[in-house]
Amino acid sequence: MTPNNENTSRIVLGKNQYGKAEVRVVKITRDTDRHEIEDLNVTSQLRGDFDAAHFDGDNAHVVPTDTQKNTVYGLARDGVGSPEEFLLRLANHFTSEFGWVTGGRWEAEQYAWERIVSHGEEHGHSFVRRGQEVRNAVVVKDGGAVQVISGLNGLTVLKSTQSGFVGYPQDRFTTLQETTDRILATDVSARWRYSTEAIANGAVDFNKSYDDVRALLLEGFAEEYSYALQQTLFQMAQKVLDAHPEIDELRFSTPNKHHFLVDLTPFGLDNPNEVFYAADRPYGLIEANFRRETVTDDNNAWDGIAGFC
Amino acid sequence: MTPNNENTSRIVLGKNQYGKAEVRVVKITRDTDRHEIEDLNVTSQLRGDFDAAHFDGDNAHVVPTDTQKNTVYGLARDGVGSPEEFLLRLANHFTSEFGWVTGGRWEAEQYAWERIVSHGEEHGHSFVRRGQEVRNAVVVKDGGAVQVISGLNGLTVLKSTQSGFVGYPQDRFTTLQETTDRILATDVSARWRYSTEAIANGAVDFNKSYDDVRALLLEGFAEEYSYALQQTLFQMAQKVLDAHPEIDELRFSTPNKHHFLVDLTPFGLDNPNEVFYAADRPYGLIEANFRRETVTDDNNAWDGIAGFC
Amino acid sequence: MTPNNENTSRIVLGKNQYGKAEVRVVKITRDTDRHEIEDLNVTSQLRGDFDAAHFDGDNAHVVPTDTQKNTVYGLARDGVGSPEEFLLRLANHFTSEFGWVTGGRWEAEQYAWERIVSHGEEHGHSFVRRGQEVRNAVVVKDGGAVQVISGLNGLTVLKSTQSGFVGYPQDRFTTLQETTDRILATDVSARWRYSTEAIANGAVDFNKSYDDVRALLLEGFAEEYSYALQQTLFQMAQKVLDAHPEIDELRFSTPNKHHFLVDLTPFGLDNPNEVFYAADRPYGLIEANFRRETVTDDNNAWDGIAGFC
Amino acid sequence: MTPNNENTSRIVLGKNQYGKAEVRVVKITRDTDRHEIEDLNVTSQLRGDFDAAHFDGDNAHVVPTDTQKNTVYGLARDGVGSPEEFLLRLANHFTSEFGWVTGGRWEAEQYAWERIVSHGEEHGHSFVRRGQEVRNAVVVKDGGAVQVISGLNGLTVLKSTQSGFVGYPQDRFTTLQETTDRILATDVSARWRYSTEAIANGAVDFNKSYDDVRALLLEGFAEEYSYALQQTLFQMAQKVLDAHPEIDELRFSTPNKHHFLVDLTPFGLDNPNEVFYAADRPYGLIEANFRRETVTDDNNAWDGIAGFC
Repeated sequence: MTPNNENTSRIVLGKNQYGKAEVRVVKITRDTDRHEIEDLNVTSQLRGDFDAAHFDGDNAHVVPTDTQKNTVYGLARDGVGSPEEFLLRLANHFTSEFGWVTGGRWEAEQYAWERIVSHGEEHGHSFVRRGQEVRNAVVVKDGGAVQVISGLNGLTVLKSTQSGFVGYPQDRFTTLQETTDRILATDVSARWRYSTEAIANGAVDFNKSYDDVRALLLEGFAEEYSYALQQTLFQMAQKVLDAHPEIDELRFSTPNKHHFLVDLTPFGLDNPNEVFYAADRPYGLIEANFRRETVTDDNNAWDGIAGFC
Repeated sequence: MTPNNENTSRIVLGKNQYGKAEVRVVKITRDTDRHEIEDLNVTSQLRGDFDAAHFDGDNAHVVPTDTQKNTVYGLARDGVGSPEEFLLRLANHFTSEFGWVTGGRWEAEQYAWERIVSHGEEHGHSFVRRGQEVRNAVVVKDGGAVQVISGLNGLTVLKSTQSGFVGYPQDRFTTLQETTDRILATDVSARWRYSTEAIANGAVDFNKSYDDVRALLLEGFAEEYSYALQQTLFQMAQKVLDAHPEIDELRFSTPNKHHFLVDLTPFGLDNPNEVFYAADRPYGLIEANFRRETVTDDNNAWDGIAGFC
Repeated sequence: MTPNNENTSRIVLGKNQYGKAEVRVVKITRDTDRHEIEDLNVTSQLRGDFDAAHFDGDNAHVVPTDTQKNTVYGLARDGVGSPEEFLLRLANHFTSEFGWVTGGRWEAEQYAWERIVSHGEEHGHSFVRRGQEVRNAVVVKDGGAVQVISGLNGLTVLKSTQSGFVGYPQDRFTTLQETTDRILATDVSARWRYSTEAIANGAVDFNKSYDDVRALLLEGFAEEYSYALQQTLFQMAQKVLDAHPEIDELRFSTPNKHHFLVDLTPFGLDNPNEVFYAADRPYGLIEANFRRETVTDDNNAWDGIAGFC
Repeated sequence: MTPNNENTSRIVLGKNQYGKAEVRVVKITRDTDRHEIEDLNVTSQLRGDFDAAHFDGDNAHVVPTDTQKNTVYGLARDGVGSPEEFLLRLANHFTSEFGWVTGGRWEAEQYAWERIVSHGEEHGHSFVRRGQEVRNAVVVKDGGAVQVISGLNGLTVLKSTQSGFVGYPQDRFTTLQETTDRILATDVSARWRYSTEAIANGAVDFNKSYDDVRALLLEGFAEEYSYALQQTLFQMAQKVLDAHPEIDELRFSTPNKHHFLVDLTPFGLDNPNEVFYAADRPYGLIEANFRRETVTDDNNAWDGIAGFC
C-alpha cells in the first residue's frame, strides 16, 4: 500500500498521539478504619513511531488503548499519592516497556472529597464530594526532559466591590461607561509548570504545593483593588512565583463573568450596587502567561491544553 | 376566530402556565463592610385564564414574561432573605396585581458562596463559590393553599464500605453476583414539602430548616450499614421527618452510581476492594417518597418537578 | 426492624419506582448488505410491592437493576421495531415475570441516523448521526390500562418574520415595547398521548405516526402569523389532533428563545431587523396542554415527565 | 508601581490575548421574501502591547471587550458571507484601528439551518436547525501572514461492519481480543489550514471548500475497510489533500467511541454482531496531523485549539 497517489504532493504524518481518554479510577486505601479516597479521571496518550498504523493499517506498534486503560488500573493498585506522581509512573512505564514509544502525554483530573460529619465527628468511610475547583495535572515527555504542569479549573470567585474599569481607549464602537465600583467575577483556570530541575531532582511535594498555590491565588484575588482583571491576574501570579521557586511559569485563562447593574429607575427604585444580572454570554476572556525572566516563553509541554494561548 | 374546525372533536386547553425562566439575580447587601451575597436563578410562571391567548392570539391577559423578569429584579431590591420567602413574595405580588392570575409556580435555585480566607481572616467582600449541592425551592399556588417545597440536588456522597446487596430474586436474565461489601455512591436529590399549616402560620425558618435537613440527610447516609439504597433513603427520611414536624413529606430521586471492582487477576494482582471503575451509564435510579401516615400521597404541588415519581 | 420510632407520627412509603436508567443499546440488523441501525437510550423502572426493601433492607422483591439492564439487551436480540413497541414488550415482560411487579415506567430516547452518501449513492453500512430532534417514548402501566406517550425534544425552529407581540397588559414593571415584526424561535418539546383504545387495539403504527406528527408540527409553526407563541402552539396542536384520531392529547414545553434586535444607532448604522443578539438566559417558557374535549386533563401517565405542567 | 519585589527573579508577561468570547450574532438577510439566515458564535481576542494593563492596571491600550462585541454586531450589518470572511474583516479592523494591536485571534462557530418544508415547498422565512456538525473557523494574525483554519466538530459517524483491530503488541496488561468485525464510531473533529498564499490571493471560496471537504471526509470514512481508526483518518485526509491544493494540512482529534458486543450467552441467546452496548467513558482518542511534505509541522496558528496535539 502506498500512502499517496502520484499526482499530488506527498502527504506526511505530522505530530500525532493516541491513547485512552477519561479512565475513571477510584482508589480506596483501607489499611485502617479511616479510609482514604482518591478519585481521578486519567488520560494516557502515547507518542513515537506510528507511521505504519496510519499509512498501512499495520498495528504492530499500536499498544491498544485498552491496554493503556488496564495499565492505569494495574498501577493504581500500588496507590496514587498525587496525580502528578501517578502520571509520572505511567510515563515511565510506557516509555520503558515499548521501545518505539518515545514519549507521550498523560493527564488527570482529581475530584476532592471531604468526610461527612456525623454527630460532630468526621466519619471514617463516608464522604461528600467537595465541589469547588477540579485539580488537574499534565505530564509530557517528548524527547527531552519530563515536564509537569499542575493546575486547577472551576474555582469561581467574586468581589462585590473594589473593582473598576476606567481609562480605556474610545472609538466609534465604544458604548461602555466607566465605573469605579463593579462586581468582578471569574472562574479561575490556572496552570503552573514546574522547573525541569525541580522535577528531575524529585524535589516537589505536589500535594503541598497545590494546596499552597490555591490559597495564594485566592489571596491574590481578594486582597487589592482591581483596575483590570489583567492586573489582578498579575497580582495572583506574583504571589505564587514569589513563594514557589520550584515553579517556572504560571498561565491563566479566565472569563470576565459580567454582572450588570439592573436599572431599576423605571420602577421608581434606586439601585446602589445591590441588584445585579449575572450574564452568561458573551463574557470577557483574559489569557495571560507569567514567567520568570530567566525561562523562555516557548515550551511545547503546553500544547493541547485548551484555551491557554 | 374559532379554535376548531367542524369535522373533528373540539379541542380544549388543559393545564397551562407560562413565564420567564432562569432569571439570574445576584443581591449584594452592603450595609457594612462585611457584604452579604445571595445568588439565585428564578423562574416565574403564571396560571389563570389564558384561553384567548391560545385560541385567538389575544394578549390582553398575558403579563409579559419580560415584566415577570423585571418584577424579580424589582422585588430583589428589598432583599431576598431565603429563596422560599422571595418566591412567596412573587406569588403574592402576581396573584394580587392581576385579577385573572389565579395562581402560578415559582421556582429558584440558590448557589452558595463562602468567604475567601486571606491571611487567616474571612474577607469582607471576596467570595468563592461553594460547589456542592444546589439548594432549590418551589412555591405553588393553584386555587387552594400555598404550597412550599424545598430541596437540594447534586449532593454527591459515597460510602467506601458498609454497603451490600444480597437476597434478590433470580431469573433467566440475572447475572449479578451478591456482595456484602461494595461502594455505595449517589447524587442526592431530595425535596421536602412543608405542611400547609406551617406555611400559613409563617412558622418556618427556611434557612435554618434547610441547613438542618441537609445535615440529617448526610448523617442518615453515613450512619448505618446499607442493605439497599432504598433502605438508606428511608433512614435518611426518617431522621428528617422525626426531627422536623413542620415537614409533611420528603421525596428522593437518586442514582445508584456504580463503582465496579476492577478484575486485576489477569495482571497477577489482587484487588481487596481497593481499585474501582466509576461508571457513567447506565446507573441505577431509585425514586421513593416518604410521608407521614396522616397526609395524602397525592399533592399536585409536585407536578413538573423532574424525575420525581 | 420497625420503621418508625414511637414518638412521632408513623412514616409510610408513598409512590416509588426503581430501575436502571440510560441503558444504551445499539441494534444492527444485518440480514442483507444494507444494514439497519436502531440506537436507543432505555430506562426501565418497576412499580409494585417494595415496602420490605425500604423499611427492612429485604431485597426478596427487588429485581436487580442489573437484571433490568440485561433484559433490555436480551429483548433487543429480537429487534426493536419502534421505541414504543420495544417498551411495551419490556412492560409485558416484567409484569408477567414477577408477581409483585404490578406496573412500571419505561422510557426511551431514539437517536436518528442517516446513510452516508458516497459517490452519489447511499452507503450500505456507513451512517452519519442526524442531529436534529431526539425522539422519545414513555410507556406507563400502573394498575389500569397501558398508556403510551410519544414525543420529541430539541427540534429547534425559527421564523425570521411574521411574528409579533402586542396588546398585553401594562403595570409598574412593564418596560417591554410592542412589536409586530420579531424573530420567533423555540426548541420544540412536544409529547402526545395515544388513546388507550388505540393502544389496546394495537392499531397504531408508531413510526409512521411519529414522522407525520413531526411534519405537522413544523408546518403548524411555519404557516401563519404568530400573535403569541401560545397561539402558535395551538395551531400546531390543532393540525396534529385534527389529523390523528388515535391521539387524545398533546402537550408542549417550549422556551421563547429571545433574539434581541441590536441597537446600531450609536455606531451610525440602521438595523432594519437584520442583526440580532441570540440570548441564553432568561428565556420565556410556555407550557400548554391541548386535548380533545372528550378526554380528561388528569392522566397520571404524565407524572415524571420533566417540565410539562 | 513596580511589578516585582526585589527578593525574587523578575516576572515577565509572556504570550497573552484578551477579548470577548461567544458573541452570538444572528444575521437575517431579507432583500426578498426568501430570507437567508446566518447564525454565529464569535470570539474576538487581541494581541499586542498590553504590559501596562497587567503590571500597572493602566487600561490606555485595553480596547474594551465590550467594544469588541459591539464591533462584531456593527460589522455584521454589512453581512457575514462566510465565517472565515467575517473573521478576516474583524482582524483587519482591529489591527488597522488601534496602533498597538499587532494581531489577534478570531474564532467562530456557525450553526446550520435548513428551510422548513410546508405543503411540499421550502418556506421563505421558517427554518429548522440542522443539528449535525458545527462548522468553525479561526483567523490568526501574529506578526506575519494571516492564517485561516477551517473545521468542523460533532460529525458523528458509524460503520456497522468493515472494521477490525488485529496485530497489536501484547504485554502483561493486554486483555483485549482481536476482532475482524466490529463497529467503528467517532465524532469527527477536523481542522484544515489554508496555505498563506491562497489566503493572501483571496483565492478561496470558503463555503464551497467547506461543503466539499465535509463530503470527502464522509466518503473517506465510508469507503474502505478500516484496519485502525488511524488508517481511516489517513484515508480521509488523503481525499481532502488530493482534491484541495489550497489546503496545506489537516488535523484530526477523534474519539474511538466503543460499541461493545453484549454477551447474551448467559441468557441462552447468540449475538452475531447485532446487539451492542454504546459506552461513554473511557474512549479511545486518536489525534493525527497530515500535511504536504512541503510545509512544516510547526505552525503557531494552531495554538489554543483544544485537543489537537
